[in-house]
Amino acid sequence: MEITPQKIAVIMAGGKGTRFWPRSRSARPKQFLAIAGTETLLHQTVHRLEGAFEPQHVFIITTRELADETRKMLPELPPENILVEPEGRNTAPCLALSLVEIERRIPEGVMVVLSADHWIGDTEAFIQDVDLAVDHAASHQELVVFGIKPTYPETGYGYIEAEGPESAGVQKVLAFREKPPLGVALQYLESGRHYWNAGMFVWALSDFRKALLEHCPEVLTPLDEWTSQGADEAALTAIYGRLPRVAIDVALMEKARNVALVSTHFRWSDVGSWPAAIEFQEPDANGNVVQGQAILLDVKNSAFFGGTRLIAASGVSDLIVVDEPDALLICHRDKAQSVKQIVDRLQQEGREDLL
Amino acid sequence: MEITPQKIAVIMAGGKGTRFWPRSRSARPKQFLAIAGTETLLHQTVHRLEGAFEPQHVFIITTRELADETRKMLPELPPENILVEPEGRNTAPCLALSLVEIERRIPEGVMVVLSADHWIGDTEAFIQDVDLAVDHAASHQELVVFGIKPTYPETGYGYIEAEGPESAGVQKVLAFREKPPLGVALQYLESGRHYWNAGMFVWALSDFRKALLEHCPEVLTPLDEWTSQGADEAALTAIYGRLPRVAIDVALMEKARNVALVSTHFRWSDVGSWPAAIEFQEPDANGNVVQGQAILLDVKNSAFFGGTRLIAASGVSDLIVVDEPDALLICHRDKAQSVKQIVDRLQQEGREDLL
Repeated sequence: MEITPQKIAVIMAGGKGTRFWPRSRSARPKQFLAIAGTETLLHQTVHRLEGAFEPQHVFIITTRELADETRKMLPELPPENILVEPEGRNTAPCLALSLVEIERRIPEGVMVVLSADHWIGDTEAFIQDVDLAVDHAASHQELVVFGIKPTYPETGYGYIEAEGPESAGVQKVLAFREKPPLGVALQYLESGRHYWNAGMFVWALSDFRKALLEHCPEVLTPLDEWTSQGADEAALTAIYGRLPRVAIDVALMEKARNVALVSTHFRWSDVGSWPAAIEFQEPDANGNVVQGQAILLDVKNSAFFGGTRLIAASGVSDLIVVDEPDALLICHRDKAQSVKQIVDRLQQEGREDLL
Repeated sequence: MEITPQKIAVIMAGGKGTRFWPRSRSARPKQFLAIAGTETLLHQTVHRLEGAFEPQHVFIITTRELADETRKMLPELPPENILVEPEGRNTAPCLALSLVEIERRIPEGVMVVLSADHWIGDTEAFIQDVDLAVDHAASHQELVVFGIKPTYPETGYGYIEAEGPESAGVQKVLAFREKPPLGVALQYLESGRHYWNAGMFVWALSDFRKALLEHCPEVLTPLDEWTSQGADEAALTAIYGRLPRVAIDVALMEKARNVALVSTHFRWSDVGSWPAAIEFQEPDANGNVVQGQAILLDVKNSAFFGGTRLIAASGVSDLIVVDEPDALLICHRDKAQSVKQIVDRLQQEGREDLL
């Protein structure tokens, strides 16, 4: 009889999420918003693990700025399981810090790296895929990445090229590919061997340590020294501030050779923009989606994310309206990416009150 | 040397103005809004008379509901010059009540009837036209109406058919015409003898009394009885509530034969809708008009009547956006008349808080 390895979840929850302005703010990032259901994405991410992970083995890693609110939002987790980055420095330092923090508490286990601000359908399929990846990582000492089967030639995601064919649901990874131009994305889509990289990883603590030390010791070694010196919280700020700002994909995954891919069987969305959030709402007969109270006359294909105020609209179509007490967004559905420009403008104008 | 007759202004200020929802409300009608300049329409109407009328000869008539606020807004007028209708019952009762109230204070004079919620350009030309009308009314014992030269075939106004040609700026009126269908409005426009009826009248107190008694005694007689019984305010409510709801045009002007028209030399607008209000704002290079703070990206031909909140818009055109703390209107420029439907809906839904 095989022994099930200890499963540890690490949920990265330090995202800023300016793309949901004006609803998302620096102190209220995307993972704190209920934009893909009635629960926040953070709550959904944690609750999805219920029954499959012990609460004391579910860790959140977030920035100092967001830690208190995150702890408050998740009374079901031990408060000390909310790990704190002094600041956001991309995913390699984030996961290396998670590693050393978890190693101090749990000597052995398999770490499942998840994002707090993604949506996942089909919890059962998700847990099955996780268990498959955990078993594979534990039994093969490999770094496992989840691969999402692409459904269209998205140019905003990184891709993973797998060798194929699958053996027991797992295949070898040949390469990680940066966000492609459209022509390349189309080739990827046709190849049948390219998967979206959703930034979800599974690896044994010991294998992750080994791989970091081999491929990017500059990320792990300073943290190991910090641990050996007593892991003083104040000391971490200076050490962490000198770690390279680098993604785990670049620092580790692109270099490691023992990487395997589990192609997923659950529906997934990174809920990357307002139009993506609209997909989670049931439209009325005119294609409109309403949160809050609205009177709509001759309105089509529009979305109203309101609050307590009444929104009355007439003779408009293809709009996204987001209504917050201090700011209002009115945007053509095809122009949702311009939210970034608006946020940039607010930064230039020093409107920290709105960011 | 001719004696200049005593000029008395009566400004009707009981309008409800639902067409400017959500900025206009039952307690904040159109005349209280600064929608055609930096001052409210009421203030503009009163200030336009400065120098030409004695403050004690400027009267406002409004409803009980609006009287306190109107008095507060106009400290430059004697408080007792704010005349109070127990309720709005159209212009014939309103002007008959004005007559009996003014007669108690001023035995003789010429009454100039104005609206509190119209915009008038060229104050000098306006005062000249007023003086011409006052002199004519006083010297000819006629009821004078101002006629606005039509510039397009408006179907929302009543018209006045004049006999022409003018003699010393005045001509005889042949008929008052109801709001016409478009074909008729086009004929009126071509005739050169039809004028818009802006509801501005000039007549001696004594001539007005005589005409009311002749053509609609049912409007004046009960008020005369009320006066003879001591003009008790509480008694007025019951008496006023039984007066016919009728416009002065129908009750009097269409029947009287001693009616003259002064064609105006000032610019005029009844500021009847949000698109009309936009005309008073200077658009930017993209045809946009902004009140308040806005970030506009690729926005054209739109108007933003904001408040303290930031409005950010992207990729939209031909919108009217009106932002109030408790309600938001987003409306295609060509659909501004649907504000009425929205207000009707709110009434049906019992949303008095928003009306």
